Amino acid sequence: MLPQLTILAPGLLGASVARAARARNLAQRIVIWSRRAETRVALAGQPWCDAVAETPETAVAGATLVVIASPVDQIVPLIRQIAAHLNAGAIVTDVGSVKEEITRLGTHALGAHAHFVGAHPMAGSEKTGWEHGTAELFQGRTCFVTPLVNTAPAATATVLKFWRDLGATTTTVEPARHDEIVAHISHLPQILASTLCAFLAQRDPAWRDFAGGGLRDTTRIAGSDPQLWRTILEQNHTEVLGALQHYQAELNRFEKALVAGDYTALTAQLQRGQDYRRGMRPAS
Amino acid sequence: MLPQLTILAPGLLGASVARAARARNLAQRIVIWSRRAETRVALAGQPWCDAVAETPETAVAGATLVVIASPVDQIVPLIRQIAAHLNAGAIVTDVGSVKEEITRLGTHALGAHAHFVGAHPMAGSEKTGWEHGTAELFQGRTCFVTPLVNTAPAATATVLKFWRDLGATTTTVEPARHDEIVAHISHLPQILASTLCAFLAQRDPAWRDFAGGGLRDTTRIAGSDPQLWRTILEQNHTEVLGALQHYQAELNRFEKALVAGDYTALTAQLQRGQDYRRGMRPAS
Repeated sequence: MLPQLTILAPGLLGASVARAARARNLAQRIVIWSRRAETRVALAGQPWCDAVAETPETAVAGATLVVIASPVDQIVPLIRQIAAHLNAGAIVTDVGSVKEEITRLGTHALGAHAHFVGAHPMAGSEKTGWEHGTAELFQGRTCFVTPLVNTAPAATATVLKFWRDLGATTTTVEPARHDEIVAHISHLPQILASTLCAFLAQRDPAWRDFAGGGLRDTTRIAGSDPQLWRTILEQNHTEVLGALQHYQAELNRFEKALVAGDYTALTAQLQRGQDYRRGMRPAS
Repeated sequence: MLPQLTILAPGLLGASVARAARARNLAQRIVIWSRRAETRVALAGQPWCDAVAETPETAVAGATLVVIASPVDQIVPLIRQIAAHLNAGAIVTDVGSVKEEITRLGTHALGAHAHFVGAHPMAGSEKTGWEHGTAELFQGRTCFVTPLVNTAPAATATVLKFWRDLGATTTTVEPARHDEIVAHISHLPQILASTLCAFLAQRDPAWRDFAGGGLRDTTRIAGSDPQLWRTILEQNHTEVLGALQHYQAELNRFEKALVAGDYTALTAQLQRGQDYRRGMRPAS
């Protein structure tokens, strides 16, 4: 059991960490800092929050483990802000959707005084905000953990155990490899859903009322926060662009088959898609 | 109440019509024909099937209303096959996802003897097969009904009432307009989901095991039957190609913004997507 777990800037993911940690009895004391004063007031009344801090620096005082749950562009600034206030040997992890830059700069910011071990639980939602957090959010989901070659093995082990204890299935990968994977399985789908909706909005928005479950499911994530996604795409620019351009080549092949009336090639693409989709694990 | 409802070639949709018609007491007698002998045996034991016919011709004898529930490429051949065996004044409808060609040729095939009024309930699923049918499949869903200018108003009224009685919300549109709409809100999303999966299959299929709910929802319909979709895309070739090419221009704009690092333009596209998606009615 952790003597003190500190969570900075909880939204959906951070609040779910707190709820799951309390439900699973992982921390004696849970301390939370949130940027907005009204959120701090609301958090103070939650059974999964033992103390609210006024600043990140005071929130991390005495913490064994710190989870930074802010949008990705604020993670490194927060690490720099708390660095001098961490206990010696404290461990810092995060929930950011991009890992290369955060892991590199975060590790550098902490130096030899404390440990940064990046993490990314694949448990987002188009719903944001700490009010939507649940103790079961991570159950059965993948959580990437991205230590560097010189990260202290004991710190990595603590972070892996923490995410597993929250219910996630952990996967250890290099930060750059993580960013390539999520560019494909998370950032590209987001772009397709968002641009499909942006496109349909230009045609006749009233058509959406006719839609069956197909369009609804395909576009669910287009409801996500554009500002959050802007920062994710900006930080993962190179990998996202590569995935997008290779995907466009696949889509162009489909278009060419349609133009040519080559329904054998077109059906082969649909078949490859079906085979892939049917191999996906059922939702947990 | 219809004296006799005949359903030809039931899959998910046809079986749901039968179940809903029985549950809502819309027909005294439900007669079904299926191409496969083993399906006919299985259907004979269902409480929503009063008689199984060995041929389409015998199935429609005495029918007040006939629902053709086959894949789209078999609808017109079936209409031609049953034309001479329909009662005078009988009404034929269908569930096909494309309407221009089917409505034109189907109406022509029946001549003055009987009536064809095309329909398309937006209630498909990646699950096919009559075993998956439910009495509630059409509840709250759009059903397009596509009469021609010279279709008998009474026949159109009967078909509209029938789909409403099954629980659907009906929308009357010209067949060509229907095909344009579904090219955008159904066929294009199918292409994106299928090509995304076909693309990811080429990268590293193991990555799918890391996926969160986003990829899962975005690609659900990629599990659909490639052969069914081949015939839909073939019949709606022109409209689908137009929708796909206009969408590709939208996606290219996104790519160009990413290449240029124009995150203001990129965020504006994400925002338009979010606005559209948030305006979608909640699932019924």
